[in-house]
Amino acid sequence: MTGPGEQRLARAALTYLAEPGDPALGALLARCEPAEVVAAIKADLLPATGPGCGDSPASRKALEGALARWRARLPGLPGDADIAAACRDGIRLVCPGDPQWLERLDELGTVRPYALWLRGRVDLPSACRRSVSMVGSRAATGYGAHVAGEIAADLGEQGWTIVSGGAYGIDAAAHRGAQVVGAITIAVLACGVDYPYPAGHAGLFADIAAAGLVISEWPPGRHPARLRFLVRNRVIAALTCGTVVVEAGERSGALNTARHAAELGRPLMAVPGPVTSRQSAGCHRIIRDWGATCVTCAADIIEMVSPLGIADSPEAPAPAGLRGAPRDELDLDSARVLDALPARGAAGPSTIAVEAGVDLDTVLRCLGLLAGCGFVERCDRGWQLRRR
Amino acid sequence: MTGPGEQRLARAALTYLAEPGDPALGALLARCEPAEVVAAIKADLLPATGPGCGDSPASRKALEGALARWRARLPGLPGDADIAAACRDGIRLVCPGDPQWLERLDELGTVRPYALWLRGRVDLPSACRRSVSMVGSRAATGYGAHVAGEIAADLGEQGWTIVSGGAYGIDAAAHRGAQVVGAITIAVLACGVDYPYPAGHAGLFADIAAAGLVISEWPPGRHPARLRFLVRNRVIAALTCGTVVVEAGERSGALNTARHAAELGRPLMAVPGPVTSRQSAGCHRIIRDWGATCVTCAADIIEMVSPLGIADSPEAPAPAGLRGAPRDELDLDSARVLDALPARGAAGPSTIAVEAGVDLDTVLRCLGLLAGCGFVERCDRGWQLRRR
Repeated sequence: MTGPGEQRLARAALTYLAEPGDPALGALLARCEPAEVVAAIKADLLPATGPGCGDSPASRKALEGALARWRARLPGLPGDADIAAACRDGIRLVCPGDPQWLERLDELGTVRPYALWLRGRVDLPSACRRSVSMVGSRAATGYGAHVAGEIAADLGEQGWTIVSGGAYGIDAAAHRGAQVVGAITIAVLACGVDYPYPAGHAGLFADIAAAGLVISEWPPGRHPARLRFLVRNRVIAALTCGTVVVEAGERSGALNTARHAAELGRPLMAVPGPVTSRQSAGCHRIIRDWGATCVTCAADIIEMVSPLGIADSPEAPAPAGLRGAPRDELDLDSARVLDALPARGAAGPSTIAVEAGVDLDTVLRCLGLLAGCGFVERCDRGWQLRRR
Repeated sequence: MTGPGEQRLARAALTYLAEPGDPALGALLARCEPAEVVAAIKADLLPATGPGCGDSPASRKALEGALARWRARLPGLPGDADIAAACRDGIRLVCPGDPQWLERLDELGTVRPYALWLRGRVDLPSACRRSVSMVGSRAATGYGAHVAGEIAADLGEQGWTIVSGGAYGIDAAAHRGAQVVGAITIAVLACGVDYPYPAGHAGLFADIAAAGLVISEWPPGRHPARLRFLVRNRVIAALTCGTVVVEAGERSGALNTARHAAELGRPLMAVPGPVTSRQSAGCHRIIRDWGATCVTCAADIIEMVSPLGIADSPEAPAPAGLRGAPRDELDLDSARVLDALPARGAAGPSTIAVEAGVDLDTVLRCLGLLAGCGFVERCDRGWQLRRR
C-alpha cells in the first residue's frame, strides 16, 4: 500500500511527465492510484486495470501512445527529494482530495488538473468561494484597462476574488484593480509559478503571491508555450463562480476561456464597448451569439454569480457558497485579525495590525481572505465586521 | 350611404378632434364608419352600435367621457373645404384601406392611427417593405451620432429605408446617414407635417420630404406636446421591420419606442457602447433585461429584420416582403428611371436623369424608392439593376 505522501509525490511527478489536460491520464487517474500510474510509466507497462474496465483495443492503443509520450519526459523528471524541495519559498502543491483542493475543479472531469502548484499562503477554497474570472485581450485599449480595473476593484471591495491569467492588458488591469482595494487576486499561469512570464510582470506576480495566489498546473521552472495558454484557460474558467470578458478581439484567447465557462455551465458575461473598437468585437459577438450576459458594472456581475441570482448586500444572508464558512477553520493569523476588528464601527489595517499583533502585510492578506469568506467588508472608514 | 371621399374626410376630421391612440375612438371605428362617428360627435349622441355589442354601463360611461373630450375640439375643426385644402404642397392623407396604407400598422389594433398625414411623394408601403427604425437620445455623443450615421448609410446602400423621429441627436444622424447615400428616410413627427419642430430641423424635414416622407398622425399646423412624442413612438415602431436603439440614457424616450417594438413582436436591437457612457446605459439595459439583440453593424441588423433571418445579398432572392413588387405599379417617374438604368453595369444619377428625361431630384427620389422595392442597388460606379 502507498501512503498519501507517496500519492501526492506521484501527482507532483505527473505534472512533470504529462501535459495538463491529457484526457488519457485523466481517465487513468480515475481508476488507478497516482503512484501506480507513475510506476507504470517508469516500467513502461500499462497498469493493471482489472476486469470490466471495458478497454477497447483502440483505447488500449491510445494509452500505449500516451505512455510513450510520458516516458519521453522521464529523463527530465527530478528525483523525489528534488520534487519535495520544489515546495519552498511559499510554493506548495495542492492535490484532489486535499482540504486545500477546490471541489469545483472536479467538474472538469477527465481534464481535471492532476494537481495544482500554488505560490502564496491564501486558502484556495476560501478565496474561490466568491470569485469571478476577468479575462480579455493583451492589446487592451485604455477604455478596456480602465473598465477592468474599476470593476475588479468594485468586486474586490465587496469581497469577491478576481481570477485572471497574469497577462498584459486586461488581465493585469483586473489583478491590479483587486490589489488596489486589498482584495484577493489569483493569477493562473501557463508556466511554473516561479517563472516570470511575461518578464515585465515579475513584480506583479510577487505582489499577487504576497496577498493572493499564483497558480499553475505546470511544475516550478516550466516555461510557457503557445498551446499551454489554451490548456490553462479551462482552469481560469473552472476556478470561479463566473467569467467576465472585458475586451476581446474576434480571435482573442479570452473567448477560449469564455467557451470553457459556458461549457462548464458557469455564468458567462461580457462587457460591451464601442462598436467602433475591434477590441470589443469579441465581447459583442458572445453577447449576441453565445448568450453571454451584457454586464456594465460590478453589481451586474454579482447578480449573475450570486446563488439564486440574489445580489449581495451587507444585510443579505451569507450566500449558500459560504455555508458554515467556519470561523474555527481559519488560519491563526486570520483568526487573530478577525478578532482584532471592532465589534461596532470600522478600523484601518494599521490599527488592526497593532491590535492583532501581526504585521501589516499579513493583515492585508488576511482581510482579503476574510472578505472572501464573508466575515468582513471594506467600508469608507476601513474594514468592518459583516452582519450575517 | 356615404362615399369613400366622405369617409376619408371624416377620418381627417377625427385627426383634428381626437388625440391619436385614443382606444375609445379606435374601438368605435372598429364598428362604425368614420363619418358616422364624426356625425355622432357633432350631434353629441353616441352612435347606434346595434345589439350584441356587449357595451357595459362602464364602457358606455367611458365613451360618454370621450365624446365630451372630442366635442371640446369642435370649435377648432376646420370646414370640409379647409380640411381638403390641407392636402397641398405635397401634403396628403392616407387612410386605412387605401392602397397607400401600410397594412403593418393594423397590428396596432385599437390604437391604430385614424389616418396618417404624409408630406412627400414616396409610396408608403413600398418604402416600408424593407425598413428599420433607428432611434436614440437627443443628447447623443459624438460616438452615437457617428455610429447612427454610418449604420443608416450602410442600411440605405442596401436598399433599406430608415425611419426615425426627426429629433436632434441620433434621429437626425440616422436621417442624414440615409440621405447621404440617396436612400429613403421617413421622419415620424409628433406635430403637423408642416410644423418645423425642432425649428432647426426645418431644412432637414424639407430634405426628407423631397426624397422620402414626413409623417404625422396630427393634422397640419398642430404643435407638438410632451405626451405626443410618446404616442408617436408606437407608430415609429409599427411602421418598420424592426427597431434599433443606437444610444439611449436610462430614461430616454427611445426606450419607449423600443418597448412598442417588443410589444408588437418586431425585432428589437440595440447598439452597445462604452459602459462609461450614460448615453449607452439604456442600450445595455435592454440587451440585458429585455432580450434586445446586440447589433454592431448594418449586417447584424439586416440578419435580424430579413424574413427567416436570411441576410440580404444581391445574389439572394428577393425577400418575401417584396412579393411581386410589381413593376407596373410604379409611378411614371420611377418607371422611367428604372427603364433608364443600363441592362449591364451601372450609371450615375445625372446620366440616368438625362436618359430618363426627368430632373435630378426626381431621379434621386425614384432611385431610393426603387432600391426600397429591391429593383436597383447602389454600387461603386453609381446605381445598377438588382439581379432577382
